Amino acid sequence: MRNAEVTKEKILDAAMAEFSAYGIAGARVDRIAAAAGCNKNLIYIYFENKETLFITVLKKNLARVYDNLPMATENLPGYAADLYDFAMANPELMRLLAWANLERQSSVQQERAESISQKLGELAKAQGAGIASPWLSPASLLTLILAVATAWSAANPFGQLINPAVQGDRDELRKTVISAIGLLIASSPPQ
Amino acid sequence: MRNAEVTKEKILDAAMAEFSAYGIAGARVDRIAAAAGCNKNLIYIYFENKETLFITVLKKNLARVYDNLPMATENLPGYAADLYDFAMANPELMRLLAWANLERQSSVQQERAESISQKLGELAKAQGAGIASPWLSPASLLTLILAVATAWSAANPFGQLINPAVQGDRDELRKTVISAIGLLIASSPPQ
Repeated sequence: MRNAEVTKEKILDAAMAEFSAYGIAGARVDRIAAAAGCNKNLIYIYFENKETLFITVLKKNLARVYDNLPMATENLPGYAADLYDFAMANPELMRLLAWANLERQSSVQQERAESISQKLGELAKAQGAGIASPWLSPASLLTLILAVATAWSAANPFGQLINPAVQGDRDELRKTVISAIGLLIASSPPQ
Repeated sequence: MRNAEVTKEKILDAAMAEFSAYGIAGARVDRIAAAAGCNKNLIYIYFENKETLFITVLKKNLARVYDNLPMATENLPGYAADLYDFAMANPELMRLLAWANLERQSSVQQERAESISQKLGELAKAQGAGIASPWLSPASLLTLILAVATAWSAANPFGQLINPAVQGDRDELRKTVISAIGLLIASSPPQ
């Protein structure tokens, strides 16, 4: 039993690397089995098929996000900076999210929708308390925070192309994220 | 000769739909041939292989972007709104860009890098002339414009999940884009 758990973890780690590199359509179960050092059939026994394996990997890694990055409405620029740090430190997970979006993995989207709905409730409450300028709806505020925080991540098709030295500029870009969100929530837009 | 051009266009249109839906790894040349109403071998004769067909499709469609969306430094919020409109009206192209990013199509990235380098030069000149607050580097300014303008597009893994009614909210979200870029370029960030 203990061995089975160890093997499952090895498969999930190998699957993370494979799906991050190639997406669902491009991933090969043979390569995952080889990297995990197990028989290919075992993967089908444990995880049914390639799609359910992808979903298991993504859910496991999203749980890390939910645990490590709770919404911090009292300091939204700092929250955005934490998201930025996490996105830059976890390119594999950012790629997994981008693949899931393109490959329309709706069962994961539903789980993510629940986490989003909770965050929107907290943002609405914070705006009611005057913490962020009310010109943005909670949904638009959350979208802009995520768009800015992940603009230089592996999930965005522009940031790393515009700034290939993105890893060396990590500290400066974090300041840019903090400043941008600060400007967006501090005041009303110019007319 | 004229027939060959017609067939090539049909193949490129069918390939656009196929690559947009499935990416490079997931695309099937058989389906492209069936949709274009031609023999599969003809695709290999005209376009070599699946990767070069993808690159041809993406370059053809990027040329549309470069022609239709010249940088407008005298009105950056309006430029961002035009980008937003284009991104929302062309979900297939946004998906193509996202696939190209994930599937690391470096030959397209080089062509895009040239267009970006030109835009950065124009932004630097405009900032020198006082058109945008200098707290952002030209590269960060362009990245934020693109990140905000495409936050609700098919290429972003968050926007449409946070706001599933994104198509109905098109006008309101355009105003959000204009306001956000207006705030980002108008003033220096809070300390």
